[in-house]
Amino acid sequence: MTVLVFLDPAYEAGRIADASQPQLMATDQGATRGDGIFESLLAVNGIPRKVQAHLDRLATSAQTMDLQLPPADAWERAIKTAIAEHPPVEELVIKLLVTRGVEGAAAPTAWVQASLPPSAGQRQRTDGISVLLLDRGYDSSLAERAPWLLMGAKTLSYAVNMAALRYARKNDADDVIFTSSDGRVLEGPTSTVLMARVRDGVRTLVTPLLESGILPGTSQAVLFKAAASAGWQLGYGPLEPDDLYEADAVWLVSSIRLLAPVKSIDGKEIPVSPELTEELTALLAEGSRE
Amino acid sequence: MTVLVFLDPAYEAGRIADASQPQLMATDQGATRGDGIFESLLAVNGIPRKVQAHLDRLATSAQTMDLQLPPADAWERAIKTAIAEHPPVEELVIKLLVTRGVEGAAAPTAWVQASLPPSAGQRQRTDGISVLLLDRGYDSSLAERAPWLLMGAKTLSYAVNMAALRYARKNDADDVIFTSSDGRVLEGPTSTVLMARVRDGVRTLVTPLLESGILPGTSQAVLFKAAASAGWQLGYGPLEPDDLYEADAVWLVSSIRLLAPVKSIDGKEIPVSPELTEELTALLAEGSRE
Repeated sequence: MTVLVFLDPAYEAGRIADASQPQLMATDQGATRGDGIFESLLAVNGIPRKVQAHLDRLATSAQTMDLQLPPADAWERAIKTAIAEHPPVEELVIKLLVTRGVEGAAAPTAWVQASLPPSAGQRQRTDGISVLLLDRGYDSSLAERAPWLLMGAKTLSYAVNMAALRYARKNDADDVIFTSSDGRVLEGPTSTVLMARVRDGVRTLVTPLLESGILPGTSQAVLFKAAASAGWQLGYGPLEPDDLYEADAVWLVSSIRLLAPVKSIDGKEIPVSPELTEELTALLAEGSRE
Repeated sequence: MTVLVFLDPAYEAGRIADASQPQLMATDQGATRGDGIFESLLAVNGIPRKVQAHLDRLATSAQTMDLQLPPADAWERAIKTAIAEHPPVEELVIKLLVTRGVEGAAAPTAWVQASLPPSAGQRQRTDGISVLLLDRGYDSSLAERAPWLLMGAKTLSYAVNMAALRYARKNDADDVIFTSSDGRVLEGPTSTVLMARVRDGVRTLVTPLLESGILPGTSQAVLFKAAASAGWQLGYGPLEPDDLYEADAVWLVSSIRLLAPVKSIDGKEIPVSPELTEELTALLAEGSRE
């Protein structure tokens, strides 16, 4: 079942809508132009994780897109309503969506959606994933000089991300790591890249350089904080594919699927570490509850 | 007024829907991920222009996106219904939209929308437009080696195109010409670039090389055919910005706005030719009626 709660000034806790019926205008620019932004977060046993981090990133996306957002407390109330309206489950996906509305609309269309997570994601946490490296076409220095490309904003225009995933599946892989045209490791279509290096007893957690035009990962951020407290060293790219092949473990991390261990890249097996996956998954859960 | 006609096997001529009411599922992947394709065409005095060219391009987009399209005759009937349902007007915008539907849907969501054209477009045909050159970030050889980037497909993921137009307007310009990271002229966010060269009495109409990852322009195609019959030479890029500055006239051409003469690029005035605009607009209209 899917629960929809629209943010509506006339409804303090949000306006609950029937998800089995059409609720969006066909002329909404979210639908006709992918002109909007979103966030996905996980609620575990009814408690939404990292709400502030997701609202912060939503605000950054809104600013990049010149969208006026409803206030944070309206989102928080709508999230609470959506969770309360859904039958109790261990894991629930909470999506926050904002579109520019119909042409000339005074305010954006904003809603919260609660639904069950895809089963594949839960399986991949334990079974691991095979990934392909695919060129994203942009060079890693582009983001700062070309704000109109909206890099770093989480927009609804995800057709390329979805096409990359379909391309991977057609080629017997589960997921994708995008690379830049200058050969840097960027991110997954719906995840952040993370790797562990263990050298002479020193454990380092590394993620690509944020300035390369990737989306700042909310899970990566809380995990880094928790890992540092637990004695990990932290590192930020630039990373190249060879760094991944030489790592002691690689993951794609995201709010819903959490840590998915990468077991092969472009058909070449890489080391996996169930122990590190377990330890970091626990640290991520701990950091996400704060 | 807006008319909506959904393609629905149960309705031979299409299912007319009330555009003032929500008609789309909030979980439709068109709305949540910009996961779909579209076309916009002009109907003049009730006669839709270039229907076959738009259906052909829609089919190419669908193939690139792994979307199953309703058959061409269903589109033709729905277009006819949409035009008939709208009060008679000289110019009507007909949009064809296809989304992947809700997760797990057996068939895509497909509909035709008929509405009045934006008034700015009609004004710009005579007044001309100022444009900015903006880096699209991709190099011009990328399209063929990276099919997952969906270049050449007209997807609903238009957030970057819309952001580029907002960027132009904030910087006192009307429109944008995208350039590739290797300095080639590409296309407008919603239009094809066209330029005229007149040398020693020889008139040449030039457009950027299609292989540079741009959308094949349906208006450019019919105009080229009509212009060739009228004695014009035809040329295909590669073009660089200097070619635009040295042209005798530059236009952005699209199905709705038609030929919009470019009067300045990055704040630098370029020659405009009302005579050529008039001649080519007539050729475009003639070619579009076929």
